[in-house]
Amino acid sequence: MHFSDNLIKKIRAKKSVVCVGLDPRLEKIPAAVRNAARAKFPEDAMAAAGEAIFLFNKGIIDAVADLVPAVKPQIAFYEMYGVAGMQAFADTLKYAKSKGLVTIADAKRNDIGSTAEAYANAYLGSVSVFGENVSPFEADSITVTPYLGWDGVKPFIDVAKKHGKGLFVLVKTSNKSSGDLQDLAVGVGGDKVHPLYETVGHFVESWGADDVGEEGYSCVGAVVGATYPQQAAKLRALMPETIFLVPGFGAQGGTVEDVLPCFNAGGMGAIVNSSRDVIFAYESSKTFGEAEYAAAAREKVLSMNEELKVVFG
Amino acid sequence: MHFSDNLIKKIRAKKSVVCVGLDPRLEKIPAAVRNAARAKFPEDAMAAAGEAIFLFNKGIIDAVADLVPAVKPQIAFYEMYGVAGMQAFADTLKYAKSKGLVTIADAKRNDIGSTAEAYANAYLGSVSVFGENVSPFEADSITVTPYLGWDGVKPFIDVAKKHGKGLFVLVKTSNKSSGDLQDLAVGVGGDKVHPLYETVGHFVESWGADDVGEEGYSCVGAVVGATYPQQAAKLRALMPETIFLVPGFGAQGGTVEDVLPCFNAGGMGAIVNSSRDVIFAYESSKTFGEAEYAAAAREKVLSMNEELKVVFG
Repeated sequence: MHFSDNLIKKIRAKKSVVCVGLDPRLEKIPAAVRNAARAKFPEDAMAAAGEAIFLFNKGIIDAVADLVPAVKPQIAFYEMYGVAGMQAFADTLKYAKSKGLVTIADAKRNDIGSTAEAYANAYLGSVSVFGENVSPFEADSITVTPYLGWDGVKPFIDVAKKHGKGLFVLVKTSNKSSGDLQDLAVGVGGDKVHPLYETVGHFVESWGADDVGEEGYSCVGAVVGATYPQQAAKLRALMPETIFLVPGFGAQGGTVEDVLPCFNAGGMGAIVNSSRDVIFAYESSKTFGEAEYAAAAREKVLSMNEELKVVFG
Repeated sequence: MHFSDNLIKKIRAKKSVVCVGLDPRLEKIPAAVRNAARAKFPEDAMAAAGEAIFLFNKGIIDAVADLVPAVKPQIAFYEMYGVAGMQAFADTLKYAKSKGLVTIADAKRNDIGSTAEAYANAYLGSVSVFGENVSPFEADSITVTPYLGWDGVKPFIDVAKKHGKGLFVLVKTSNKSSGDLQDLAVGVGGDKVHPLYETVGHFVESWGADDVGEEGYSCVGAVVGATYPQQAAKLRALMPETIFLVPGFGAQGGTVEDVLPCFNAGGMGAIVNSSRDVIFAYESSKTFGEAEYAAAAREKVLSMNEELKVVFG
């Protein structure tokens, strides 16, 4: 099935546009989980860290799998635990997939030609190794940074198309300094002047135009921050066939009202990510303590689904 | 020692501005190396791939360590071999460092806030894991993509400063489509119109201005492609305190003449990367065959050093 059709099917089935960000931090993982992992690897701190992360993620995934269409592990929080962290990343993707979730590898990869192809094969495709076909970090989709231009994105699109996967290209990000480059006014010599992110938005819409699924969305999505609702509204109008991955909800300040402009009619065309607010919900839950971190995450997702159901109109 | 002073010391000592790109491709690794690795891991193709890559890199590093200041492994070619590939990446960095080489992790990472900090700690700093301080993929420097703006780069700079490390921010890349974003004309409403890469160049120069070493260069370098000599000349003038990492020499079409504008007086201010042309030099060497791939790489580096000695004036 086309990447976007699969995602939309799950959004409809679960009546949820929430993506749970799996951004583990060892120091916030409940003590019981950390201790169990450490007991398994008493001589190897990194292996114990990887194990703790995977156990923690498994708890979260089990608690939310029936409630949300997608999860998004942020790879930086796995790379920081070295090879064992990367193993936890691979295991997390595999486990989430087995639970019927769409997976987004938030890796913001970018490079050119055969190098970009190597990344694409690592995350969306497969690699031939001594005659075996292996998919080392298999995800349904990956985030990609567009600074290198078309030949830095095309290899990801090619591999995505071949394997029924997708990508999300950074367009307008949720952070405070995102305007440093993204808001620069471009287009002179008769062209209409507009901010850089609109140019990138046009690129992204056109890059996906020849691979649109039955539901009307392409395999090339866009990252559009919840913290810039006016810009999101403009981009939504410019990019009718592009699915938005919307970070910045909750902890970063984005509200339900802020994410509304990211959606097309009927709650289509966007998913809203929340990481810390969900996975560490136990820190602020009145019902559940640290040991019940998974139940706290479920409680938080239920309330997000309730808050966001307005998008379905 | 300051990152830039250390790099310049090695450039002077070896009279070389060459950086060897370690971009292994399993299918091009000589059969003897591949077979030895496979014999060690007959049941695990990925482990064998990781072993083959590390053995191959070790051969290259041993052959060129006395001739060049730096090596640059491109992480995509390691990620594509999964966890075993990442182990080979870590081992390669460690081995290169033990041979006195400056290491550049070509990872083009980019993210914001605590996520960028996680990347920075993984590659330039250290991570506390169950009370142990670990540096999972320790390199002297990393490449970074600037699309997210200042708060996407600052965490890398903070960690670099703390640990005497450096970074290279993409400014004007060597690929054909680099102009899609990087050449867009920006600056309206009274500002002087100029291409986006110049704006990024200004940012990079200013981001490093408060951490300049004794030799006059900061810890924040720039990636400037050999394939755009006129743009490089402009950037060189705009960014006197920034070290350029120059890809695109050789296989991608950049010539000695093309890289000259990247240098300040006396051969300072830039290093020129070559990957495939060096590590797979055996493919075109008249003297050395596949089994002597390391000698072929050494031969190629000697000829590059000879060609490029003109930069020292």
